[in-house]
Amino acid sequence: MKAIDGGITAPQRFKAAGVKAGIKKSGKEDVAIIYSEIPAAVAAVFTTNAMAAAPVHVSREVAGRGLARAVVVNSGCANACTGEQGMTDARAMVKIAADALGVAEQEVLVASTGIIGVTLPMAKVAAGIQRAASMLSVEGYEGAMQAIMTTDTFPKSCAYEFPLGGTVARIAGIAKGAGMIHPNMATMLCFITTDAAIAPAALKQALHDAVNLSFNMISVDGDTSTNDMTAILANGAAGNALIDSTSHPDYPAFFAALKTVAVYLAQQVVRDGEGATKFLAITVKGAPDFASAKQAAMAVAKSPLVKTAFFGQDPNWGRILCAVGYSGAVVDPRKISLTIGDVGIVKAGLGSCYDEQALRRIMAERDIAVTVDMGIGAAEATVWTCDFSYEYVKINGEYHT
Amino acid sequence: MKAIDGGITAPQRFKAAGVKAGIKKSGKEDVAIIYSEIPAAVAAVFTTNAMAAAPVHVSREVAGRGLARAVVVNSGCANACTGEQGMTDARAMVKIAADALGVAEQEVLVASTGIIGVTLPMAKVAAGIQRAASMLSVEGYEGAMQAIMTTDTFPKSCAYEFPLGGTVARIAGIAKGAGMIHPNMATMLCFITTDAAIAPAALKQALHDAVNLSFNMISVDGDTSTNDMTAILANGAAGNALIDSTSHPDYPAFFAALKTVAVYLAQQVVRDGEGATKFLAITVKGAPDFASAKQAAMAVAKSPLVKTAFFGQDPNWGRILCAVGYSGAVVDPRKISLTIGDVGIVKAGLGSCYDEQALRRIMAERDIAVTVDMGIGAAEATVWTCDFSYEYVKINGEYHT
Repeated sequence: MKAIDGGITAPQRFKAAGVKAGIKKSGKEDVAIIYSEIPAAVAAVFTTNAMAAAPVHVSREVAGRGLARAVVVNSGCANACTGEQGMTDARAMVKIAADALGVAEQEVLVASTGIIGVTLPMAKVAAGIQRAASMLSVEGYEGAMQAIMTTDTFPKSCAYEFPLGGTVARIAGIAKGAGMIHPNMATMLCFITTDAAIAPAALKQALHDAVNLSFNMISVDGDTSTNDMTAILANGAAGNALIDSTSHPDYPAFFAALKTVAVYLAQQVVRDGEGATKFLAITVKGAPDFASAKQAAMAVAKSPLVKTAFFGQDPNWGRILCAVGYSGAVVDPRKISLTIGDVGIVKAGLGSCYDEQALRRIMAERDIAVTVDMGIGAAEATVWTCDFSYEYVKINGEYHT
Repeated sequence: MKAIDGGITAPQRFKAAGVKAGIKKSGKEDVAIIYSEIPAAVAAVFTTNAMAAAPVHVSREVAGRGLARAVVVNSGCANACTGEQGMTDARAMVKIAADALGVAEQEVLVASTGIIGVTLPMAKVAAGIQRAASMLSVEGYEGAMQAIMTTDTFPKSCAYEFPLGGTVARIAGIAKGAGMIHPNMATMLCFITTDAAIAPAALKQALHDAVNLSFNMISVDGDTSTNDMTAILANGAAGNALIDSTSHPDYPAFFAALKTVAVYLAQQVVRDGEGATKFLAITVKGAPDFASAKQAAMAVAKSPLVKTAFFGQDPNWGRILCAVGYSGAVVDPRKISLTIGDVGIVKAGLGSCYDEQALRRIMAERDIAVTVDMGIGAAEATVWTCDFSYEYVKINGEYHT
């Protein structure tokens, strides 16, 4: 697998565009289209939030059919908690995009991100979609990447090529964060393209499994958004023999490539978590099963006390064991061990004499690995998170006004 | 019910003391004893954290017997994650206190609060307990109240008298916060005394029910501590006819008094939440049952995005509905309504035109009521919480070092 240039349009026969439609107060890019010149298999996963936004409902219908041509996205307004008007607007976005692209409405996914509870300025949105549709190009990936951002401080994008069924396929993705990040079956917004040929059912399974190992393993603030969505379009332009099921010999290679993209983008979302100064990999091993390992790791990742301690570079490790203790996972306090970086802190439930200088050096780094060994099983899970800083409070105390 | 002076020793035949034993780096009071001159019924509830501290295990045994004479407490060190040494030290604290007080070891509860993962400096602790035991007095409630504090900025105490069974009884309590507050069956530390005569089984039920309506309805940061404990001693000195069961005619009057103390102290803990600038009462009504109302209210109370928005006085109400949406409670997005203060924001799932000036005034107040009407039932729950401020990050980034 080799990293390549070109972002979301690196796979063959994809184009994209991002334009400034005037939805964002900042005046930056806020409408994007990602387009496949030929029909593509589609799969998507969505937020489990009961207050799911209008575009989530509309895109769920499209993804259910298994074939799509385009994704239309706006930032600056989430079109969530907007009732019937929100549904009307989301459907209108689809129709305007479909008309401009000359494709069927049933082939266009729609996504929104931004402030909740405000209806879309549809005149601006419509003009933006039409302009984006007229500007589609291979180079347009840069604009599209910008147009899905909200409080993100950098765009998140990757592209790879990989051998597949005797030929070479490409896979690429873009994602945005940066707050309300605690995905449950999907993240904020992530779009993945590939020119691999794969049937919708196999694609759906691959996406589901990849998301469970990537976006569902991250948390910035424990808030599961109303608008989370991860979608993949696979247009088959690579010319590989169709991967028609998960038991096809080329499925593992495709899944490995998809997982690489999903994990990379999920980690990028955490690295750009609102106000983040640290990237924390919380691994819980020695657990009876994956679910309880994840449950314990997620409790640590969500703990404001743990997150502020890492911000302060304060090795207050008791808070980590405290969070494991209330996570609901089975714990034997006499068997638990804790390592930060390569410094063993707790062994078999007891604080040990450790090298304080070494620990201080690790706490000062940007990337820190925390490993809890439950000592009662063989399962393991890693959750990625960031710290809680003054900047997180500032960003979120001042976002609306 | 009438508020009275005198704190934890206002009930008859209770004494207390708090001394500076040198456990806290600050040099402030850090060892307390609360003592009943006559045997008292005892009940206590404890943290559900699987990493429960040594004193929790020891006090659970004492409380199980139903009779006690004293509580010995230290701050500055939680005696949690301290293994066998921690158990030995907790039992030693009990023995030292029992010997100094001339009571049986089986009659002394022990509690600790402070940093996790460090063993107690037992020489200092022992000297402190002996000095406290020698200084017990009715006036000692002030020292005791100080000695249980950690990052608290003010002591939390109340005392009331109330008519009971033809006589007058007294009930009083002290509590400490101020971080790692998301109690589950108890809060950090809370001690309640009463001179009412009540049997251990009825006392246990009353405490359990009162805690479920008070300490289990608050959250500062979502972290359930390793050391949470709420204990009550009832020594019967008021001379009322013994309340021998929950069906006794005087039980409701006693329960009401206990609930008043518990709710007052729970709210005080929230008001003094680390870095708190706001006191938020999150009410969810119109829910199918209490459990789902509490589930939804607690999700709002724990959301870092909601808490930072209130800190910023930013009426970003979409975050409140988002939290309700991911809480796991049953939600019908078309029926949900939201009121902040007396300003209706969302009606039947739709943002309504509201008085922005009025909302801005409410957001500027210290005490703010948030009411979510689910519109699908008749049950209601109120959770109390505080905002997330720069100060919370500062306090918790710098606590350890």
